[in-house]
Amino acid sequence: MRYELYYWPSIQGRGEFVRLALEEAAAEYIDVARAPSDRHGGVSAMIGIFQDAGHPHSPFAPPFLRAGKQLIAQTANILLFLGPRHGLVGQSETRRLWTNSLQLTIADMLTEVHDTHHPIGSGLYYEEQQSEALRRAEDFLRHRLPKFLAYFERVLADNPAGERYLVGNALSYADLSMFQMIEGLRYAFPHAMSGAARAYPRLIDLHDRVAARARIAAYLASSRRIPFNDTGIFRHYPALDRPAR
Amino acid sequence: MRYELYYWPSIQGRGEFVRLALEEAAAEYIDVARAPSDRHGGVSAMIGIFQDAGHPHSPFAPPFLRAGKQLIAQTANILLFLGPRHGLVGQSETRRLWTNSLQLTIADMLTEVHDTHHPIGSGLYYEEQQSEALRRAEDFLRHRLPKFLAYFERVLADNPAGERYLVGNALSYADLSMFQMIEGLRYAFPHAMSGAARAYPRLIDLHDRVAARARIAAYLASSRRIPFNDTGIFRHYPALDRPAR
Repeated sequence: MRYELYYWPSIQGRGEFVRLALEEAAAEYIDVARAPSDRHGGVSAMIGIFQDAGHPHSPFAPPFLRAGKQLIAQTANILLFLGPRHGLVGQSETRRLWTNSLQLTIADMLTEVHDTHHPIGSGLYYEEQQSEALRRAEDFLRHRLPKFLAYFERVLADNPAGERYLVGNALSYADLSMFQMIEGLRYAFPHAMSGAARAYPRLIDLHDRVAARARIAAYLASSRRIPFNDTGIFRHYPALDRPAR
Repeated sequence: MRYELYYWPSIQGRGEFVRLALEEAAAEYIDVARAPSDRHGGVSAMIGIFQDAGHPHSPFAPPFLRAGKQLIAQTANILLFLGPRHGLVGQSETRRLWTNSLQLTIADMLTEVHDTHHPIGSGLYYEEQQSEALRRAEDFLRHRLPKFLAYFERVLADNPAGERYLVGNALSYADLSMFQMIEGLRYAFPHAMSGAARAYPRLIDLHDRVAARARIAAYLASSRRIPFNDTGIFRHYPALDRPAR
């Protein structure tokens, strides 16, 4: 089956967590909003679906995935669907629930990253909320970021199957997402993340091993990987990158 | 099996979405942090679990649920676990994924409700971020709240099985959560929600029917239901309750 991924075409954003899973799985997929409009692609093809009334499983927002007749929204939910089909999550219900809870905590963290530059409203420009962003980013880097990273570092340290993966002794989609989180944090907050390798050695090691996987490395080097930029979730505004851990 | 629910004892918060499911299911459970400390209850019993190193499935934050040997965190994930065991979600994978995506969208909305009074930092008091809260609440009530409510109203209207439930033709945990969302929004923002019955008739009807269910009505009238207050997620600060829809 060829999947159809629907997400904004110019940013990594939440869609990137799905793209990484599809790439690692070597799944056949089309990134619809990045496809040419004369081949049924483009942003309008995406907006047509999630803003059209009448579809019984209409998404609130991108990303969403079409798999045959199913239309599946919400990043963690898409990964919950893809994981078992592509060997990206353990077999037992216990492992799947644990992986899902980690993914949801990554999603919570991602929302807080977004809100460092958009603390007032997602419909406003950064420049319209810059003074609030300075306060929020400082609070995030001082309190929240260390709390989240220390938690995931501990998850690796406490994994009974060893420190190489978040869940069990094999790669899961949560590991791919953690790679993306570390990658994005280093882009957005190079100063605050400068000591991460010393403070969170297991997380950085996981990041490096994911980046070196053959399919992920090939994807990252391809034009399918959209570069970080100043319209995505991870943005590098030097003014916001202050507290060192 | 007797479940153990772990959540802050003085607020409804995210734990309430789990409490409502357990109550509707007439499941046997203990609300650990609200139980007497001489019976292994209290906040310290909860904090001991999620801050102790060494547990392989340690949660990042409450709520979490102990079910036998399993420890399950993240509200939507707990409901994903409880739903099929208690007839609170449809049987097919398609229905379960759709229900989960609705629950995750409710969770996103709830985070935005929280951030109306805490736009800068969850570790700061409201009074320390009141000017930012005024801006964020206005943006939320003007743009985000109508977008979320219109979406869920449309989900009801577009449900091929009828307008009475969010998914299919039977109650799911997403309906219980939507009841709680409407109830909380009316408490926090009575002015902004004053026209909701006219603008979102299907959602208000769903809210009313959930409230009238025998087990839910009994729960709401009991001392197990913690009243809304000014330390929870839904807070009534009149200064923040401005834009009418």
